Amino acid sequence: MSDGMNYAPVATQQAAVCQPGEFVFGVTALDHGHIYGMTQNLKRAGATCKLVYDPDPKKLAYFLKQNPEARAASSLDEILDDTDISLVAAAAIPNLRAGLGIECMHRGKDYFTDKTPFTSLSQLDEAREAVAATGRKYACCYSERLQNEAAEHAAALVASGVIGQVIQLIGLGPHRLSAGSRPDWFFRKQEYGGIICDIGSHQMEQFLTYTGATDADVSMARVHNYAHPAHPELEDFGECSLVGNNGASGYFRMDWFTPDGLRNWGDGRTVILGTAGYIELRKYVDIGREPMSENNLYIVTNDGEEHLNVTGKVGFPFFGKFILDCLERTEHAMTQAHTFKAAELCLRAQVLADERN
Amino acid sequence: MSDGMNYAPVATQQAAVCQPGEFVFGVTALDHGHIYGMTQNLKRAGATCKLVYDPDPKKLAYFLKQNPEARAASSLDEILDDTDISLVAAAAIPNLRAGLGIECMHRGKDYFTDKTPFTSLSQLDEAREAVAATGRKYACCYSERLQNEAAEHAAALVASGVIGQVIQLIGLGPHRLSAGSRPDWFFRKQEYGGIICDIGSHQMEQFLTYTGATDADVSMARVHNYAHPAHPELEDFGECSLVGNNGASGYFRMDWFTPDGLRNWGDGRTVILGTAGYIELRKYVDIGREPMSENNLYIVTNDGEEHLNVTGKVGFPFFGKFILDCLERTEHAMTQAHTFKAAELCLRAQVLADERN
Repeated sequence: MSDGMNYAPVATQQAAVCQPGEFVFGVTALDHGHIYGMTQNLKRAGATCKLVYDPDPKKLAYFLKQNPEARAASSLDEILDDTDISLVAAAAIPNLRAGLGIECMHRGKDYFTDKTPFTSLSQLDEAREAVAATGRKYACCYSERLQNEAAEHAAALVASGVIGQVIQLIGLGPHRLSAGSRPDWFFRKQEYGGIICDIGSHQMEQFLTYTGATDADVSMARVHNYAHPAHPELEDFGECSLVGNNGASGYFRMDWFTPDGLRNWGDGRTVILGTAGYIELRKYVDIGREPMSENNLYIVTNDGEEHLNVTGKVGFPFFGKFILDCLERTEHAMTQAHTFKAAELCLRAQVLADERN
Repeated sequence: MSDGMNYAPVATQQAAVCQPGEFVFGVTALDHGHIYGMTQNLKRAGATCKLVYDPDPKKLAYFLKQNPEARAASSLDEILDDTDISLVAAAAIPNLRAGLGIECMHRGKDYFTDKTPFTSLSQLDEAREAVAATGRKYACCYSERLQNEAAEHAAALVASGVIGQVIQLIGLGPHRLSAGSRPDWFFRKQEYGGIICDIGSHQMEQFLTYTGATDADVSMARVHNYAHPAHPELEDFGECSLVGNNGASGYFRMDWFTPDGLRNWGDGRTVILGTAGYIELRKYVDIGREPMSENNLYIVTNDGEEHLNVTGKVGFPFFGKFILDCLERTEHAMTQAHTFKAAELCLRAQVLADERN
């Protein structure tokens, strides 16, 4: 049984896009285990991890064990003052991510946060202002696409036109709760932001990516706590529907109901419906089938049906492109507008769901 | 390439519940090919097909070839006047189904219609009145559950409690259009009723069955024609969300975008999420896997993952139970309230979607 909290997939196909020392980053706020995958994938793509800071010595020691080339900084300021460092990667408690990022940008650093990037629309507004004022990047590791090879391959297939015009996207994001090993903030809504804000941010990013919409209306949103009365602020279930500004629609379900018998932390699925075919991603497990394997892509077109397992074949192209974007001030990996719009949509859906309750 | 229009699955496991001649039915309105599966499954369960009437001699000849024991009646009246016959099975043009059924009931017959049972809420009201006035049954062959062994097995598993409390249902109902071989009425909305009214009726019935809700609010409904301008009244896409009166929710997508390369007419899926596990049905095809097989049920619980192919193992228990219900005036196969509520929900969702457009 894998709990997924420190789930850190690393692409096996990952060419470094720069020389050692050419792109240097610091790490702080080790509050969520996602930071380990973010760090490894930046390093695989050529980045150099120089400094790390966290007030918790245990977390710091764990990080340094995995990244022995890094050095413990005595404070966040030491990272922000270091002129070698151009990017700060962080996985803070969600409601603290915006404040940290805005500080980093005002100190001249690009910022790369674990998702969800914000817990309120006002934080998003402030970050938009800070990006405009500083010219720095507020990037987000929407890992359910950026750290899954099937998800990245699907983006390439969609772009090739093989399934025609994308008219709808369904995303299922079940996750294992493992309540006993979660930090307190995980159960406080003001800190984690709600299930659509949190897990739903992945779905919104995929919606924009696969459908090509640049904005959307939220047509339905619901959150609920069905089965966890001991954690009254936990939303163990969320769902929402969108209609994009290009007419494509999306439906997304997020939940904390992964059964203990599943081999992995969650049976994440994505179904991309086009006018000439469809793609289904079984991202982390293909249930009831041996061997366990991630990165399954099923495609049906007018020519037939096909199952592809793309493990080791696609890599995580985001990370190299992102490093080059930081070095060259381009936006090939992901535009700032896209990063912020995905965040905006999950926040708007969360607000709609909260109003309903 | 299978077009599904005459899709007539017949259960291999089907014990007759009565002796030949003990339960006699007539057939009329051969407008949709679904009538063949309905007829075969009634016969397998012990019913005797005595008379058939349709004004179209070609359809009549085709039916008689498949059911040589039946005799062509000279009119519908001949069926309705036949005192041996207690049930009329029919697959009329959808907007004519209610009128036909109400006439049958007032002539002392139970009625068994292809889905969708109605195309308007006023038809449903009239049928409710006719049932109350006559004591006859207005039954409906919601075939995507009643004629699929995986779907029936799922109902038994859910009832056993193995996945805990059902909190959500997702149903995907893609269908192959085969526009060239469809009758004209198929493309006239006033006659087919809209895609949620039509294909969505299956989904609503499954929602009531698997979640145990007895009513629901429609929280979102949309229909659209994305890619068939030659058929402006066709809705090639529909989706809706429900919240049941027990708190369980449902999301359903219906479409006419099955690619030609799929081996079967549609990759129908059902995902039943419970608090202690989930079930996924791949009802008609398990894409990208050989051999092609219907009736796939995947279940994940706290004990593990399992894939069951239940072809030939479950049968279609509805038909025998339904015959006994007709003979004994019971409601074990499906209650009248359930039949009508499923119809009401798809009609209410269609109205909501139509208002949006």
